[in-house]
Amino acid sequence: MSKRFLQVGLAATAALAALSAPALAQDAVASSEVPEYSVFVFNTTLFLIGGFLVMWMAAGFSMLEAGLVRSKNVSMQCTKNIGLFSIAAVAYYLIGYNLMYPLGNWSVGADDTGGYLGAFGVAVLEAVGVSADAADDIGYASTGSDFFFQLMFCATTASIVSGTLAERVKLWPFLIFVVFLTALIYPIQASWKWGGGFLDSQFGFLDFAGSTVVHSVGGWAALTGAIILGARKGKFGAGGEVHPMPGSSMPLATLGTFILWLGWFGFNGGSQLALGSVGDAADVSRIFSNTNTAAAGGAIAALILTQILYKKVDLTMVLNGALAGLVSITAEPLTPGLGAATLIGAVGGVIVVITVPMLDKMKIDDVVGAIPVHLFAGIWGTMAVLLTNSDATFTGQLIPILIVAAFVIVTSSVVWFLLKATMGLRVSEEDEMLGLDKAEIGVEAYPEFGGSQA
Amino acid sequence: MSKRFLQVGLAATAALAALSAPALAQDAVASSEVPEYSVFVFNTTLFLIGGFLVMWMAAGFSMLEAGLVRSKNVSMQCTKNIGLFSIAAVAYYLIGYNLMYPLGNWSVGADDTGGYLGAFGVAVLEAVGVSADAADDIGYASTGSDFFFQLMFCATTASIVSGTLAERVKLWPFLIFVVFLTALIYPIQASWKWGGGFLDSQFGFLDFAGSTVVHSVGGWAALTGAIILGARKGKFGAGGEVHPMPGSSMPLATLGTFILWLGWFGFNGGSQLALGSVGDAADVSRIFSNTNTAAAGGAIAALILTQILYKKVDLTMVLNGALAGLVSITAEPLTPGLGAATLIGAVGGVIVVITVPMLDKMKIDDVVGAIPVHLFAGIWGTMAVLLTNSDATFTGQLIPILIVAAFVIVTSSVVWFLLKATMGLRVSEEDEMLGLDKAEIGVEAYPEFGGSQA
Amino acid sequence: MSKRFLQVGLAATAALAALSAPALAQDAVASSEVPEYSVFVFNTTLFLIGGFLVMWMAAGFSMLEAGLVRSKNVSMQCTKNIGLFSIAAVAYYLIGYNLMYPLGNWSVGADDTGGYLGAFGVAVLEAVGVSADAADDIGYASTGSDFFFQLMFCATTASIVSGTLAERVKLWPFLIFVVFLTALIYPIQASWKWGGGFLDSQFGFLDFAGSTVVHSVGGWAALTGAIILGARKGKFGAGGEVHPMPGSSMPLATLGTFILWLGWFGFNGGSQLALGSVGDAADVSRIFSNTNTAAAGGAIAALILTQILYKKVDLTMVLNGALAGLVSITAEPLTPGLGAATLIGAVGGVIVVITVPMLDKMKIDDVVGAIPVHLFAGIWGTMAVLLTNSDATFTGQLIPILIVAAFVIVTSSVVWFLLKATMGLRVSEEDEMLGLDKAEIGVEAYPEFGGSQA
Repeated sequence: MSKRFLQVGLAATAALAALSAPALAQDAVASSEVPEYSVFVFNTTLFLIGGFLVMWMAAGFSMLEAGLVRSKNVSMQCTKNIGLFSIAAVAYYLIGYNLMYPLGNWSVGADDTGGYLGAFGVAVLEAVGVSADAADDIGYASTGSDFFFQLMFCATTASIVSGTLAERVKLWPFLIFVVFLTALIYPIQASWKWGGGFLDSQFGFLDFAGSTVVHSVGGWAALTGAIILGARKGKFGAGGEVHPMPGSSMPLATLGTFILWLGWFGFNGGSQLALGSVGDAADVSRIFSNTNTAAAGGAIAALILTQILYKKVDLTMVLNGALAGLVSITAEPLTPGLGAATLIGAVGGVIVVITVPMLDKMKIDDVVGAIPVHLFAGIWGTMAVLLTNSDATFTGQLIPILIVAAFVIVTSSVVWFLLKATMGLRVSEEDEMLGLDKAEIGVEAYPEFGGSQA
Repeated sequence: MSKRFLQVGLAATAALAALSAPALAQDAVASSEVPEYSVFVFNTTLFLIGGFLVMWMAAGFSMLEAGLVRSKNVSMQCTKNIGLFSIAAVAYYLIGYNLMYPLGNWSVGADDTGGYLGAFGVAVLEAVGVSADAADDIGYASTGSDFFFQLMFCATTASIVSGTLAERVKLWPFLIFVVFLTALIYPIQASWKWGGGFLDSQFGFLDFAGSTVVHSVGGWAALTGAIILGARKGKFGAGGEVHPMPGSSMPLATLGTFILWLGWFGFNGGSQLALGSVGDAADVSRIFSNTNTAAAGGAIAALILTQILYKKVDLTMVLNGALAGLVSITAEPLTPGLGAATLIGAVGGVIVVITVPMLDKMKIDDVVGAIPVHLFAGIWGTMAVLLTNSDATFTGQLIPILIVAAFVIVTSSVVWFLLKATMGLRVSEEDEMLGLDKAEIGVEAYPEFGGSQA
Repeated sequence: MSKRFLQVGLAATAALAALSAPALAQDAVASSEVPEYSVFVFNTTLFLIGGFLVMWMAAGFSMLEAGLVRSKNVSMQCTKNIGLFSIAAVAYYLIGYNLMYPLGNWSVGADDTGGYLGAFGVAVLEAVGVSADAADDIGYASTGSDFFFQLMFCATTASIVSGTLAERVKLWPFLIFVVFLTALIYPIQASWKWGGGFLDSQFGFLDFAGSTVVHSVGGWAALTGAIILGARKGKFGAGGEVHPMPGSSMPLATLGTFILWLGWFGFNGGSQLALGSVGDAADVSRIFSNTNTAAAGGAIAALILTQILYKKVDLTMVLNGALAGLVSITAEPLTPGLGAATLIGAVGGVIVVITVPMLDKMKIDDVVGAIPVHLFAGIWGTMAVLLTNSDATFTGQLIPILIVAAFVIVTSSVVWFLLKATMGLRVSEEDEMLGLDKAEIGVEAYPEFGGSQA
């Protein structure tokens, strides 16, 4: 079933259960008979609030990345982030939305037997001042709120990529990659699950808010990009030693993490897709609580583990630990209790602390740690659904992870290689040393603060 | 019709339309019969959420301006922003709110024939724990939520002015100007449209969320101030050359832009003034989507255009391009489709890229680019209503723009000149070189980071 | 009566009043007969929105403190803030929530005669997809939303402590103190009022959103810590002179203040604990408006007073003035009118300007001014309830303030002394000079910006 209809179905079940309960109200209005206008307005409100919280995550990624790159590349990172968010808005409107939500109208495949390629055409909102009987889906929510909410997930996927490739990828090839990612790659694979496609209908794949559909997709695209692009000049020594290149502003990185943490309540909570019934409101509340505690678990795990391993706490690990906790709970933020959610998040934090140096050893240069956070914790989170949701099966989780991986690796690689062959992906060695702000942007981030430019 | 009642009227029309539809519910509760408590609570909730989002824009302006001024004036800019927001709160309570919303009780004029000057008196909230039949307006929303929401628009107008005049205007004269702006100038002209005054009743002027009523007003006040105040020392050379004075922190300017972008969902979405029906919820959703895509259009236009013109992308232009896209869609965020909204925003972005150097040529020193963003794009947005809303007329849009312009230019100039004649508007040349933080605030923004102080 | 049930009771009263009003609707649905699903969903929504706004205050404290400490201690301050917030989440889940809300099931005492110690046991959320008749409290809100909302108040209490002790307290002892504060100290005293304990049942103590229960508790814990820990090296000269140690970033401190201001709408507005009726929606609106104007009053008071006293405006005082205004209105944000609220906040601002130098004279080193803001203004706000709420009595306010003070001072002191005796509380003199980022974190906040390290 599609993401759009799955949870609404659950809510309807709860409503049915309530209908069979003894009537409490003495007049014609039983509490369980929620009028359709009410469901529509509450669900729409959930999408609007959830959507603006996820939109806010774009600012979170910007600040996180601005804080974790060196000062000579900060303006570039800000430009990439506002640029990718803007491009996602247009690409998702023109192509992505209907590719992702064909509403049964597949170009290749069908809901029942498995959809593979969605519909082509631009997104169209409901008419102005629509009446209840003319609404696109009176039992669900307004199309505009659905578009707004889903767009933000698409944009988030692109945000994930930008941090990994920082400090050496050229602006325009990166932005063109974003066009492909947000118009085609993300929406097509998202349709397989949330659009009611074959991962949903054939595999019973469960991914509530997108540990795989969003985070691993961003992670795979980032990983292929990082490998094709290569490491920053001087990051890895000839003898295998790793040269730290510390970020320019820890408070901005911290701010970015808090913004992402806040935005995640919309990301996971909004993915309940319904708020208008008692059961849905209680479920959204469970999700908020679990999302928060998973982030806490990830942060605490990284706090303790870095103290033990390095005798000093590493703030960047704590920040990424919190984010990994959030990614870990994203595939299933509803069914765990608070204890399970905390532990699922904590494992995410451990994954980050272990895999960041692992990537370094493999000479894969991920500037902000997005691959451990979004890809590795995303895989963990998707498999962790098995721990608390009895509807999940091992193969029903694992095979879709692999299918999505294969699809994104192949399609991303094609795009990255095409860009490399045509425009070139990487700035010149000279420009890299100079800093991308001077080389490509012409606006320095901190013109008055003398920075060591090594 | 007043802003307060216009959209509620539309919603009622939609509800009437729904009433004539075949009944879907089998019992006494038809979906279209929205109970009055529900409308009241939903509308109030919209105002509270919209209001806190617009309040957040005050932080956005602070960060944008803190990032775009030089480090020696950053504390001053922060002081001005928190000061103006606080002053607006008190001035709007004491005078502005009832001047803007006389509710038919005009000092000069009347709703039908045209109101010119609203009512005098302090704002009074509803009683504690009011019952449905004692509410000020049970068919609309709570007075407290309306006050809260509308106050934030008044404060936004003042925020616009502070950036343009940065780095040379004295603190106290600026704050006194804000008293006049938020107690009198903004509310009086806003009453002409949103209070049901003569621009509304005689011209049929359409300005949904205030491209003219808010943004151009801030822009005109900034422009008159900039001309009367003069340019910063050293900004324009004797030979007409322009000396760039780059801002101290691009990530803060980017953060400010993202904050404003987020806040704008409240600004435009809340201006639907109703959420409780299917039609209103769908309309608010359209507005959120259009607002987002217009910002994206503005950013992309500036991204591409600065690359073409300057061979390098100018981040400050991209940020202002996004903001100009937001201002452009503000006069009519409901009727356009996504494509039209994107293009309307894109034109806003183009306007910024073209008019920023134009102002420089005219030796008008607008430190943050607020005049292109809020005034020029505000005029464009107000005229662009004609493109998608058939109720708009050319003269019904243009003449009110000119009337508001004349009113704000004249009243602002009087206040600026009075302040200049009495307290003086401008810091001494010495203080300007030293920086306003040392001269007037005594708290340096970055005491440990050596900044070039030129 | 407990915080959970007090306001719901008020709302029910309003609903009863409405019931006796003449029926306006012509069919079976009277507007005043709000269906239970609707109350449940609206109240739950209020808690979720209020909760994420208060969560956001954690970012506000982080930015405020990051801006007010010197650059060599900024990473540490960020680490402490994200660490304490994470620890609070787990401690409140494992112990705090049921200690605070025993729901009549006291370990020592009872609701009627006075509860003293709540229940032990982990927090348990409602089941997934709960039906109306199976909800924990269908007339109130979901347990998950209540937990989420209340957790954030607990975390806020810990955030208050971290700023005061900055620049010399060791990381781990501080975090262990947070465990005690959030698992035991805060929840136990909060149960006395909001859990329906003896301060509520025996004293009729009124503290709407926690001027005493939250802010003074954080303040007392900070004060005891500051005294036991001692001042920063070099802060107070032998001759009694005070050496200013200016904060590293005023824009971050300003950002933090705006974040806190925004979050406070959730803090106070959410504490209405109900949104689903006309009366509750109007009350929440009053609270938003009063909260905003009190902050404005505090900021304006500090603006004017520092200008008069020092001939220059002190931005840090203005920021703390706004925060003190917010703390001052927190004990009673509902009953004042806008004028009274502005004045109550303004007194808070005056308190800050007067007491910050007073603490310096007493050689109590409060790095960010949290004691004046949260403790002194918190006491003022709690007594100011007498001005506008006729249910408050002088002793009913004063004695609970003193009881809470005694409890927190004693319990905090025990914990601080135990930590001092075992792990040591304070970094070495050498580490303090070096900066805590290098000494304990190993990640510098601004590695490229040369800071004066004195």
